[in-house]
Amino acid sequence: MALVLDAMGSDRHPIPEIEAAIQFARETSEKIYLVGHRDVVFSVAKESDFAGLPIEFVHADDILDSDAKAVSSFKEKPNNSMAVGLRLVREGKADGFLTNGSTGAALFAALRILGRVRNVSRPALTTYFPTQSDYCVLLDIGANSDCRPEFLHQFAVMGVVYAEKLLGISRPKIGLLSNGEEESKGNELARETFKLLKASPRLNFYGNVEPKEVFARKVDVVVTDGFSGNIFMKTTEATAKMITDILKSGFMATPLTKIGALLNKSTLAALKTKVDPEKIGAAPLLGVDGLAFVGHGRSNANATLGGLRRVKEAAKSGLIDEIRRRIPIELSNESGE
Amino acid sequence: MALVLDAMGSDRHPIPEIEAAIQFARETSEKIYLVGHRDVVFSVAKESDFAGLPIEFVHADDILDSDAKAVSSFKEKPNNSMAVGLRLVREGKADGFLTNGSTGAALFAALRILGRVRNVSRPALTTYFPTQSDYCVLLDIGANSDCRPEFLHQFAVMGVVYAEKLLGISRPKIGLLSNGEEESKGNELARETFKLLKASPRLNFYGNVEPKEVFARKVDVVVTDGFSGNIFMKTTEATAKMITDILKSGFMATPLTKIGALLNKSTLAALKTKVDPEKIGAAPLLGVDGLAFVGHGRSNANATLGGLRRVKEAAKSGLIDEIRRRIPIELSNESGE
Repeated sequence: MALVLDAMGSDRHPIPEIEAAIQFARETSEKIYLVGHRDVVFSVAKESDFAGLPIEFVHADDILDSDAKAVSSFKEKPNNSMAVGLRLVREGKADGFLTNGSTGAALFAALRILGRVRNVSRPALTTYFPTQSDYCVLLDIGANSDCRPEFLHQFAVMGVVYAEKLLGISRPKIGLLSNGEEESKGNELARETFKLLKASPRLNFYGNVEPKEVFARKVDVVVTDGFSGNIFMKTTEATAKMITDILKSGFMATPLTKIGALLNKSTLAALKTKVDPEKIGAAPLLGVDGLAFVGHGRSNANATLGGLRRVKEAAKSGLIDEIRRRIPIELSNESGE
Repeated sequence: MALVLDAMGSDRHPIPEIEAAIQFARETSEKIYLVGHRDVVFSVAKESDFAGLPIEFVHADDILDSDAKAVSSFKEKPNNSMAVGLRLVREGKADGFLTNGSTGAALFAALRILGRVRNVSRPALTTYFPTQSDYCVLLDIGANSDCRPEFLHQFAVMGVVYAEKLLGISRPKIGLLSNGEEESKGNELARETFKLLKASPRLNFYGNVEPKEVFARKVDVVVTDGFSGNIFMKTTEATAKMITDILKSGFMATPLTKIGALLNKSTLAALKTKVDPEKIGAAPLLGVDGLAFVGHGRSNANATLGGLRRVKEAAKSGLIDEIRRRIPIELSNESGE
């Protein structure tokens, strides 16, 4: 087992990445390829920091521009850290890849270097989503702003395999995010996707789900397009932040309110854990022919370490092989019974 | 001034409606037409309950089926309470209409009976949306699941007039809900709408807004299609409910946690007010040629009373006349300066 970590991804790169690589190597003894520009990486680390640990530094000569320009600069800078790292996966030297860099650039790079799993039209960015009990799987959260019904059909299959392999759920229930539970609800994309999912005898399709059904954990896998999924996820984060900000400023207002908050410390800590985007860690680009995960740009060392653990779990689970195997079976109209 | 209240709308009709009508009539002395089937209304109220109050009962012989079947049953039952009530508005006998019934049926009824304001393609269901400071205007939250860019352009103008007239904001800033702030973000609908809004010199267009910018109150009016807007609003409500449920059960767990909660009573009450959907009240169908408001099916008497107050404010503000006047001006490409 070997994993690749892009050292140039996070907003504060390469510090969180270096710390995470060292901690992960100590914890697991798995090999890590740490990929980045040598001047950047060794301005904060010395080669000796890695001595005795299974960390191999790999130089990438090009440095991507950030954010909006990442994709266009990718084309002019073919030896950027994402490209160099993903080539290690393609060549079979590593089993999975993690970057905290631009999602758009990671998608572009993964498609160009790893390609797509056969019969998959578009990869989907896939996340664990917090509900009132445990996590469900949500996709797409932002790889594809414009989707067709067949993309969402494929997302459903990939989400099912992910829920089986990583969450250990058998026959995961699929919900289609919509603006009402009835079959007639939804925009054209949702209504057409509903028909495809309903007509797939091997998929365990629950039907449409509204946000409250997602939180009530009515389904294991929530399927939507990357525009709606991104807004859904970000609205959850933003609402949670607004509420916790109101609570925090109220709780810190006077000595008495501080005591009150202290008496409820465990509830507030549990709440913080549930709604903290960092705990959710990195998201895989499912449908890419190899393991490629994307973390938040604002990831710290802990979030990056969490991401590495997730990549390792996915690599050990045989996720990609199972997606390759199941896509043609599950998309067919033949019943599995 | 006279308002129409559909007595047959809420899940527990006609009780909340009767209570709200009585309270509103006492509070304002404005005339209320209470429209419903006489058997239903007078099974819980007697004519004498209204005696001395400016409430006029109007019989509607047909009763709509609920929810999914509301629109189809509307066609077979032309003398239902929505239709009878909206005719009072069309005939100039009343200045505004409120129902807690099906949004789909209300939209259908309002379009059929009141028609559209000239140059408006589709009416938009419009709400006040809670942010960290005060409310902004959000539309469409569910009247149109499938939109074209020109619909959203018109929504922007109607939302601006609503923010001016009802929230007293001058030159309201418009944000387009999207999955990123850059102009290049969004699905095709959002990207095309961006171009239209940017090319409208009289509109104060801020650009794309993500959910966190909406909550940070970066803009006064948030424009989106009815599918995304509905999911955005419902996700906010569902996240808030999940969090307050976690807090509630933690705070009630032991005597000590209860004392802690008591010490923070004012913060928790403020939070409850902010995220309570009932406080937001009824939503107008902007673009309909007359004032038609839709409240939640689960509205109680207080929420219905809040809805009546909102209809009255809107009627007094001259909202519809201003929308009629501004739509052709604001949609033109000529600068107002």
